[in-house]
Amino acid sequence: MIDFNYYSPTKVIFGKDSISQLGETLKNYKHILVHFGGGSVKTNGILDAVTEQLDLFDVKYTLLGGVSPNPLLSLCHKGIDICKNNNIDFILAVGGGSTIDSSKCIALGSKYDGDIWDAYSAKAKPDKALPIGVVLTIAAAGSELSGSSVITNDEGARKYSYAHEAIRPKFAFMNPEFTFTVSKYQTACGIVDILMHTFERYFTMVEDVALTDSLCEALCKNVINAGWIAYNDPTNYEARATLMWAGSISHNGLMGVGRQMDFGTHKLEHELSALYANIAHGAGLAVLFPQWCRYAMDVDIDRFCRFAKEIWGVYGDGLTKKEWAEKGIITMETFFRSLGMPKNLRELGIKKEDIAYMAKKCADFYTQIGSFKPIMYEDMINIYNLAF
Amino acid sequence: MIDFNYYSPTKVIFGKDSISQLGETLKNYKHILVHFGGGSVKTNGILDAVTEQLDLFDVKYTLLGGVSPNPLLSLCHKGIDICKNNNIDFILAVGGGSTIDSSKCIALGSKYDGDIWDAYSAKAKPDKALPIGVVLTIAAAGSELSGSSVITNDEGARKYSYAHEAIRPKFAFMNPEFTFTVSKYQTACGIVDILMHTFERYFTMVEDVALTDSLCEALCKNVINAGWIAYNDPTNYEARATLMWAGSISHNGLMGVGRQMDFGTHKLEHELSALYANIAHGAGLAVLFPQWCRYAMDVDIDRFCRFAKEIWGVYGDGLTKKEWAEKGIITMETFFRSLGMPKNLRELGIKKEDIAYMAKKCADFYTQIGSFKPIMYEDMINIYNLAF
Repeated sequence: MIDFNYYSPTKVIFGKDSISQLGETLKNYKHILVHFGGGSVKTNGILDAVTEQLDLFDVKYTLLGGVSPNPLLSLCHKGIDICKNNNIDFILAVGGGSTIDSSKCIALGSKYDGDIWDAYSAKAKPDKALPIGVVLTIAAAGSELSGSSVITNDEGARKYSYAHEAIRPKFAFMNPEFTFTVSKYQTACGIVDILMHTFERYFTMVEDVALTDSLCEALCKNVINAGWIAYNDPTNYEARATLMWAGSISHNGLMGVGRQMDFGTHKLEHELSALYANIAHGAGLAVLFPQWCRYAMDVDIDRFCRFAKEIWGVYGDGLTKKEWAEKGIITMETFFRSLGMPKNLRELGIKKEDIAYMAKKCADFYTQIGSFKPIMYEDMINIYNLAF
Repeated sequence: MIDFNYYSPTKVIFGKDSISQLGETLKNYKHILVHFGGGSVKTNGILDAVTEQLDLFDVKYTLLGGVSPNPLLSLCHKGIDICKNNNIDFILAVGGGSTIDSSKCIALGSKYDGDIWDAYSAKAKPDKALPIGVVLTIAAAGSELSGSSVITNDEGARKYSYAHEAIRPKFAFMNPEFTFTVSKYQTACGIVDILMHTFERYFTMVEDVALTDSLCEALCKNVINAGWIAYNDPTNYEARATLMWAGSISHNGLMGVGRQMDFGTHKLEHELSALYANIAHGAGLAVLFPQWCRYAMDVDIDRFCRFAKEIWGVYGDGLTKKEWAEKGIITMETFFRSLGMPKNLRELGIKKEDIAYMAKKCADFYTQIGSFKPIMYEDMINIYNLAF
């Protein structure tokens, strides 16, 4: 186990009646930016429930919708202008990871003099932001409890992240019922994203993280079970509740305690959805991760056998370790496909010639990604090719 | 799953070199009360390491030692006087649960006009306190991440708790090496206490808390494994680290998410250590809990079979459910005894005539304890008698 800091101060208000406490929570702010995505929060009544609460406590607010699935810098610029020109003192994200990440970018930019892209392009490390709160509407990204944010720059298809304590949400209101209307496809993408946030922490070269390993396995098994139920029975409260809470604690730091994380596959995926904005992050991960597993397997085959057994319920009787590990990966692929996830990059609309472009862009920015198996330009090409 | 709030904002700085960040963390406070227990933190160098850090950043401090294993109100009164008379603006607890709980009481009392016992005796609900930080020296109580505190009133052998967000520590410095010198007996008591904080949450009548159940089981299995190692090999870093982190997350709310908790056995135990100050909390719990299990078993026999299987590794092949559950309890008792824990109340020095007195005192204050199986006066008598 390596030394670690753990800090997860977001207040969670979870359950069917949670939203009734929203107005009280926000009553002391002067002017709130309510930030959201497409039309779904309008049609399903969630936005009304939010503004009703604000009206009840006479809290002034400005609405800013339009966040896209891979949130764009251009909309953040617009939000920053609104905040700066209207003395906004709080940002309420009503949505999922994209809306929360967009809110985080706006929160940072509102306290920053230059272009906030400086933070995402590693040119500056701003440490001030407007306070943020969340009304969560999809179980996936875990951004509601994390201090990180991923933004796509409309110019040049660049999708990078920035992390700082200043952008960790103050609170998150989570009503699993709010996710009943999430489509099957987006539910599936969310399930993959939740699992991936734990998998990226589970594959580590750090020894003796037994407790964290067990917590990861417990979480993933429950996500797989609840994911299958929620996908097939979208209004199952308990399954939706499990996914929602699992999504949060999968990415608030708890599952990475005491070890080095990898997050190589995340960076490989960001290149896909930066290039094609219609690619959902979870779908991209579902295609890339199994191939990353095959590519990285030899680094620590025992780890992959444990992954197969403890998370996917695959026992290795009569198999070589490589066969056992491979059987685990196939079981994972089968699960992903049972959720309607794509098989390969072609199904996502990626062209063969995109591979070299994406790998070069990733390698130019990071040089090397991952830690379990360090991934350089050639490795990126190889993994993309395996996934094609 | 029932609605819940989750809020665990304590900053954890964990690892071998963590203490080197202490001075920097405290440099802006004007006058700190450094609160500790007996002589161990003096002889093992931990207090020196703390004061070195404070000296390095020219932070003024006053030392107050003498916290006993069941922390006394009288010492808290002394601490409150020191704080009020010296404009203390931060309390640093250097120790384990008793020292932290004593610090919490002092923190509350320093901002309260009357006698702070009012809070513990349910006569007042103070919501202001001096900020608290922790340098942890024993893995057990989990008080370092919790908002609760247990204090014994020297007059009348009354031991009660008070919980409020205001007394949740701002930070906890945790170096597993600081626990290398904890005695075998205290290590064992800590292991029992950590397990009990999860068990008191695990036994619930709330259905569909699958994720929380799995996290509890993962935590407990690791505590049992690491506990056995640390007990027999006190300087095993990984085992000590597992216990230390498990102790914290066993009691910060995470393991109780989405369900009603019980905590009946805790209240029964508080009567033991209120009456006999030399009784360690963990030792009392180790005696009482197996009997509580037998007494409560019929409420939900399936839960006890799961407890046997998932936590104690006991399978029920060929057994009735009652036999299976009983086998799980016996396995737990065997584990406790392998750690040198007492068998029964007599070994703890409790006299037969104490039973009616303790039960009456408990029932007079609470009327009813527990939620999995509600426990009234007659039940208290029965459980104490089973444990005698």
